[in-house]
Amino acid sequence: MKKAKIGIIGLGQRGYFMLKDTILVLENVEVVALCDEYEDRIERAKELVAESYKGEIFTSTDYREVLKQELDAVYIATAWESHSEIAVAAMEAKIAVGLEVGGAYTLDECYAMVEAYEKTGTPFMFMENCCYGDKELVATNLARDGKFGEIVFCSGSYGHDLRDEISRGNLIRHYRLRNYTARNCENYPTHELGPIAMLLGINRGNRMVSLVSMASKAAGLSAYIEKHKLYEEDESLKGRVFNQGDIVTTLIKCENGELIKLTLDTSLPRVYNRQFNVRGTEGYYAMDTNTVYIDNSEDEFLSVGDFTKKYLDNELEFEPEYLPKRWKAVTEEEKEKGHGGMDYIMFEEFVNAVIEKTPMPIDVYDAAAWMCITALSEKSIANNGESQEVPDFTNGAYKTRKIKDVLEWK
Amino acid sequence: MKKAKIGIIGLGQRGYFMLKDTILVLENVEVVALCDEYEDRIERAKELVAESYKGEIFTSTDYREVLKQELDAVYIATAWESHSEIAVAAMEAKIAVGLEVGGAYTLDECYAMVEAYEKTGTPFMFMENCCYGDKELVATNLARDGKFGEIVFCSGSYGHDLRDEISRGNLIRHYRLRNYTARNCENYPTHELGPIAMLLGINRGNRMVSLVSMASKAAGLSAYIEKHKLYEEDESLKGRVFNQGDIVTTLIKCENGELIKLTLDTSLPRVYNRQFNVRGTEGYYAMDTNTVYIDNSEDEFLSVGDFTKKYLDNELEFEPEYLPKRWKAVTEEEKEKGHGGMDYIMFEEFVNAVIEKTPMPIDVYDAAAWMCITALSEKSIANNGESQEVPDFTNGAYKTRKIKDVLEWK
Repeated sequence: MKKAKIGIIGLGQRGYFMLKDTILVLENVEVVALCDEYEDRIERAKELVAESYKGEIFTSTDYREVLKQELDAVYIATAWESHSEIAVAAMEAKIAVGLEVGGAYTLDECYAMVEAYEKTGTPFMFMENCCYGDKELVATNLARDGKFGEIVFCSGSYGHDLRDEISRGNLIRHYRLRNYTARNCENYPTHELGPIAMLLGINRGNRMVSLVSMASKAAGLSAYIEKHKLYEEDESLKGRVFNQGDIVTTLIKCENGELIKLTLDTSLPRVYNRQFNVRGTEGYYAMDTNTVYIDNSEDEFLSVGDFTKKYLDNELEFEPEYLPKRWKAVTEEEKEKGHGGMDYIMFEEFVNAVIEKTPMPIDVYDAAAWMCITALSEKSIANNGESQEVPDFTNGAYKTRKIKDVLEWK
Repeated sequence: MKKAKIGIIGLGQRGYFMLKDTILVLENVEVVALCDEYEDRIERAKELVAESYKGEIFTSTDYREVLKQELDAVYIATAWESHSEIAVAAMEAKIAVGLEVGGAYTLDECYAMVEAYEKTGTPFMFMENCCYGDKELVATNLARDGKFGEIVFCSGSYGHDLRDEISRGNLIRHYRLRNYTARNCENYPTHELGPIAMLLGINRGNRMVSLVSMASKAAGLSAYIEKHKLYEEDESLKGRVFNQGDIVTTLIKCENGELIKLTLDTSLPRVYNRQFNVRGTEGYYAMDTNTVYIDNSEDEFLSVGDFTKKYLDNELEFEPEYLPKRWKAVTEEEKEKGHGGMDYIMFEEFVNAVIEKTPMPIDVYDAAAWMCITALSEKSIANNGESQEVPDFTNGAYKTRKIKDVLEWK
C-alpha cells in the first residue's frame, strides 16, 4: 500500500481533532511533521501520533521549516489569517495542500493562491467537509436527476451558536475573538456556499457575478459575556465592543440567473443547522424542516401529500438511490468520526488524490471563489450594502469546465 | 347598537370573501354600497348582502360615485394599482378608509396617502391581517416580555404557491398576471413586514433606514404554464416572458440596528408558510419549525431541552399567557372565518375604531412605510442590488410615537 507522508500545520481544536479522529485512522497516511505556534499543542499532538507511528516526527513552531521536509502533503488548519500565506508557500515548495476552510481578508490573497497553483501545478484541495455531507449530496443528486426541475435559488446558513468559543478566545487561544472584535462580514461562508456552488456548477459552466451583504447590530456576545460574567476570567472582555453583526445575510447573483442566499448566524442562541435549501421549478429540499417536496409526485418518497405529518414527524430517511456510493458503503465506525463521517470521507478523497495523482475534487479556483465572499461582504457591509462584483478566478475557463461532483453517485 | 354604514370597493376574490365570511357576520356593520369594475361581481355580492340587509344597496362600477354616498367607511380591495388613488379620494371625501394590502408602485403614491390623511384627518387603517395572527402576536408578546432579550433580527416570507392563480389571471380577471409579467420586485411585502414592523417599533421609536433587494431568475411560471398547457385556455400565455423573479430577497436595516429580511416566494412549488422569525440575544421564535427557543430556560414551555423531539413532533401549543385577550376569547365559529380568525378580528377592530372614533391600530404612516418597500425593491433589483434609502413618512414624529400593539395583551 502506498502511503502519503503528511505534515499538519495548525494543531488547535480543528487540527487536533482531525488528526485524532480522522487522519490517524486512515491506513494510507503517515503523519511525519507537526507544526503549531504553541509548543504545548505540538507536544499533545506528538504524543497522539507516537501511539501508532514509530518513525521520527519532525516538529517546529515555524511552518517554513515544515515545508523544507520531504512531504507528500500538508494539511493546514491554522487561524484564518494565515491560511492563504501558508497555502501559497506550500504550493511553491511543491507539497500538495489540503487547506482548511475560512474566508479571505482581501481579493489579493485569493489571486495569490490561484497564481501559485498556476505557476507550480502543485495539487491543492479546499477541505470543505460540508461538500461531503450526505444530505447535501442527496439534494444535489436529486437536482442532477431533474427531480427539482430548473434550479432557481439555493440558500444555507452557518447557524451555530459559538458564543462560548468566541468569548473564551483569549483563554483557548482562538482566532474568532479577534475577528469578531475587529471585523464585520460573512466571515465563514463556505459550509453553505461550498455545496451550493457545486450544485449550481459555479466555476463549471456558471459563476457568481455580484453580491450584497447586510449585517444586524452586534448584541449577542456582549449580552452573553455580561450574563456569564466572563470578564472575570478575561479582563479584556470588560466593555469590549464587537464589530461583527450577529446575523449577516449575503445575496449572490449567478450568471445563469440563480440567486444564492448565505447567512452567518453564530453569536445568538440557536440550535445548529446549516439550513441547506435548494429550490427548483418542480420541487425543493429544505434541511431545517428536513423536507423533500416534489410537485405532484406519485412516488411515495418524493411526494408531499400530507407534508407536515410525513416529514416533520420523523427524520427523513433518504432514499438510498440518491446517496453517493461512498455513503452507501459507510460503516458505523466511520460515521462516528468527525461530523458524522463527512471529515473522514473528505480526507480519504484528499489522500487518495495525492497518492493517485488524480485531480482534486475541490480546487484552488473553488477556494478563491468561495473565500473571496468574505472580503467582498466586508466591503459591502461597510458601504451600506453596496453591490460588489465577484471576480472570475478561472479567467474564462469556467465556461468550458465540466461539472464533476465530489463523490460518485450512479 | 351603533352600526357603521360601509361601502365595499373591489369585489374580486378578496373583497367577496371578506364580505361573505367576515363583514356580513359583524353585527355592527351595514353594507350599503358595492363597487367593482365588473357588473357580474357586483351582482354576486349584492345577492349575498340582500340575504341579511333589507335596505337599499347603492351599486356602481365607478368608485367616485360610491364616495358620494353617506358612508362611515369604505373597505378597498381592488387591484393593487388603484389602492392609493382610491384611498386618497376616500380620505378627501371624509369617509374612513380600510385599505387592503399590497405594495406601492412609486414613493409619490405613499406620500399622497400621508398628505391626504394629514390634510383631512380622515381615519385610515391598513388592513394587514397578519398583524392579527395568533402566532405573530404570541411572538411579539414574548418579545415584549423580554423573553428573547434584545431583538437583533426579524424575517418573514410570503411563501405561497400562487402559480395557478397568477397563470389564470386573464381567466379569473386577476391583477397578479400583469404584475408578474411587467415588474420585478418584492411585490407583496406586508404579510411579513407588518408584524415585524409592529414588533420592532417601526414608526414608534424606530424606523427603516435603507434596503437592498435581489431577485432570482423567473422560471417557475413558464414551467408551470408549459407543464399544464395553460396556453390552450389563454393564448396570451404562449411564450409569455415573466419579468418577476421567483424568489426576491430584501434586506432592510433599521435605525436601532436590527436587520429585517423579507422573502417573496410565490411562483415555485412549496407549502404555505410565512416563516415569521424573531431573533434576540436570549432566544427566538421560528414559525417554519414552530419553535420557541429560550436560552437556558427552566420553564417547560420555554425551555429548549430536546428541541427536535419536543417542538418538531407536535404543533406547538402556545402558552395562553402570551395570547392577546381577544385571541383567548376567540370562538370556534370565529376561527372558521377567513384565515383562521385573523380577518374577523382585524375587521372588528377597524369597525370598532370607526364607530368609537378611536385611533386606528395600523395607520397611514405604517401603510406608507410598508408599501414603499415594493417601489424601493424594484429600483434596487433594477440596479443590481443598489442600496435604497427608506423615507421617514412621519417627518421625525417616529422618535416620540409610542408602541401600542394591535390587540391588548395583559
